[in-house]
Amino acid sequence: MNMNFDTLRFEVENGVGTITLDNERKRNAFDMAMREGLAKVVAHIKTDRSIRAVILTGAHNHFCSGGDLSNIAASSDLGTDGWRNRLQDVHHWIRDLLTLDRPIIAACDGASYGAGFSMALLADIILATPRAKFCMSFMKVGLVPDCGAFYTLPRVVGVQRAKELLMSARELDVNEAKDLGIVLEIHEPDQLMARARAMAESFTQANPAAIGMVKRTMNSVGGLDLDNLLDMEASAQALAMFTPEHKVAIQAFLDKKAPPYSWKPNPQAVKA
Amino acid sequence: MNMNFDTLRFEVENGVGTITLDNERKRNAFDMAMREGLAKVVAHIKTDRSIRAVILTGAHNHFCSGGDLSNIAASSDLGTDGWRNRLQDVHHWIRDLLTLDRPIIAACDGASYGAGFSMALLADIILATPRAKFCMSFMKVGLVPDCGAFYTLPRVVGVQRAKELLMSARELDVNEAKDLGIVLEIHEPDQLMARARAMAESFTQANPAAIGMVKRTMNSVGGLDLDNLLDMEASAQALAMFTPEHKVAIQAFLDKKAPPYSWKPNPQAVKA
Amino acid sequence: MNMNFDTLRFEVENGVGTITLDNERKRNAFDMAMREGLAKVVAHIKTDRSIRAVILTGAHNHFCSGGDLSNIAASSDLGTDGWRNRLQDVHHWIRDLLTLDRPIIAACDGASYGAGFSMALLADIILATPRAKFCMSFMKVGLVPDCGAFYTLPRVVGVQRAKELLMSARELDVNEAKDLGIVLEIHEPDQLMARARAMAESFTQANPAAIGMVKRTMNSVGGLDLDNLLDMEASAQALAMFTPEHKVAIQAFLDKKAPPYSWKPNPQAVKA
Repeated sequence: MNMNFDTLRFEVENGVGTITLDNERKRNAFDMAMREGLAKVVAHIKTDRSIRAVILTGAHNHFCSGGDLSNIAASSDLGTDGWRNRLQDVHHWIRDLLTLDRPIIAACDGASYGAGFSMALLADIILATPRAKFCMSFMKVGLVPDCGAFYTLPRVVGVQRAKELLMSARELDVNEAKDLGIVLEIHEPDQLMARARAMAESFTQANPAAIGMVKRTMNSVGGLDLDNLLDMEASAQALAMFTPEHKVAIQAFLDKKAPPYSWKPNPQAVKA
Repeated sequence: MNMNFDTLRFEVENGVGTITLDNERKRNAFDMAMREGLAKVVAHIKTDRSIRAVILTGAHNHFCSGGDLSNIAASSDLGTDGWRNRLQDVHHWIRDLLTLDRPIIAACDGASYGAGFSMALLADIILATPRAKFCMSFMKVGLVPDCGAFYTLPRVVGVQRAKELLMSARELDVNEAKDLGIVLEIHEPDQLMARARAMAESFTQANPAAIGMVKRTMNSVGGLDLDNLLDMEASAQALAMFTPEHKVAIQAFLDKKAPPYSWKPNPQAVKA
Repeated sequence: MNMNFDTLRFEVENGVGTITLDNERKRNAFDMAMREGLAKVVAHIKTDRSIRAVILTGAHNHFCSGGDLSNIAASSDLGTDGWRNRLQDVHHWIRDLLTLDRPIIAACDGASYGAGFSMALLADIILATPRAKFCMSFMKVGLVPDCGAFYTLPRVVGVQRAKELLMSARELDVNEAKDLGIVLEIHEPDQLMARARAMAESFTQANPAAIGMVKRTMNSVGGLDLDNLLDMEASAQALAMFTPEHKVAIQAFLDKKAPPYSWKPNPQAVKA
């Protein structure tokens, strides 16, 4: 199951779906063809449960340079409500990605600016290269953040740091991004995709019910208080106890064998 | 007031209650006797207000290796609702610990895995040794986290890092645990309990009304907005102004004497 | 537009309002004259939209040593409800500062203790000197935190660290304050105000609609779930698209000129 669009590619291999933003001339700027492609790709991933993990990356040494400003400038005939509608169309698949019950890994080389940074924050784990740069650049063009950053950024760096990064529009190098918890691991450019693929394939061995319940519960933390979360835990764990994946893993333990899923640290990660 | 169970001990000294998980053969795995003991110990602490601080620790160089997997394997006749009920019984005293209006200090050497890590997160402050390891290992047996970790972990490390730690089930060494704010201080194994006791005894000198109001307010942050929290502050401070402990402390200030309570830094802490 | 009070000064220059706590003998302790002055100054800032950024600082090498304890001791005739009322009067302008749609920068040298630390946390960005100290010292006098710290501190350092800092009342040096995300940049005392002014003046060049919407949205995160925040994003961005500041910035981009607003890093910042 592969899909191709002008500035976007989607391939599935070994249960891992890889979305590649691809527009070399504009450093993978977030354009209309990409938006339409993402809507179709995300709709497909949502229903195709054989896809057990997703990688989001960019071609040509960059993740995504942000919204296509010449396109914004050319859309001056779009009224206020036209802009609201355009954003709500994007929110449709952003919401689907944020509530997707499968792990999403972003692999970011070079620039992740503006909407590009917002896109990376839709992932559960961000891997980056030593030359990666992240910037909530919207304030430089007099705009507020979009593509979900109001929701995602404070969940990653806390509300105070989120407010500062959004107001200052300053650029983060990869070390500060790692210190702030935005980036999990740093890999050399020629190792980045191999690490992302190994990690994604490892997640395809985990119990999908447990992964899905963990991810969705964490995504709703904030609106849920202690009693809600304890109730959710009791129901989720009781359900997980009856999944075949759990029974296989327990049997492996009793047989003193390696469990089907476990985290494989990567010795080639660059120290920040 | 001491209490003894097969795999759990509880002692009170100088206003400090110490709960020790104790099952050497299983590295203090979280078993049925421990659960029943904890329910009784926590019920006692809740009503005995002469206990002004609590220490939670493990014997034999480990905190707790997590749920007893052979016990889980042997409970296959428990239905889905049976598991929900079993967890809700645990939630009864977990809820009491999380809302207890006294400081809880966890002293963690060796392994804090799975439910053991969740237990440590019930504390307000975690002290650990250089060889301590923390792991949300549930995903390795195809389960979701329990013992309150859906609630506690994102409050300690933020929702994005919590989601990643729960999905990856990777092991944290003590330095990463300190960087993430899980561990407050690192002490050599032979200093760990002395530091925990000194800290707990120091808290017995603080105003219990102020400690209780601070702890409960912080535990409910998230469900409370700006106006709620400002109102809570006004009521709590007005109440605190009329406690005898406050009057004693103010008098000490006016007399240029040391206050009854103050934090004592420990010069023997290991640099992370 | 300048205002002068016994222990407080307010000056406006180049669109930046600077509030200076000034009581050398008491290291700018938070006293009644200061509270009354702040109420008037904040009421003025709120309606004077020519003030585009605010600096909060202290004279004489300290930010603020906290509530004036001799004043508290002398108010023993104030009943419980009298204290609630006194705090609610303070909350009136604290609420206005927290919801102010302009950037606030605190410049902190020396002591920021108790209510002084709470005051610094009303800012969006805290700059400090190598000798700055921060302490939630309320527990040392048997009180709970006030001036909004129940609300602000967990939003800066997370709920677990907030709970610990409030219960322990331990002092943070500037390096730990920077690690915890409390302090953004460290500057030598003779550079501190120059950096604060340069940063504040830079913000006066940013789109006030975008700054205001970012700040207010971030301040309400917690009470807003995914759908709320996506809706807020769509409305805010549609509005921002029609501001003259956005059109000027886009034109600068098309003309390959520098944008009116961009972050200027300061090479003189001290490494933590």
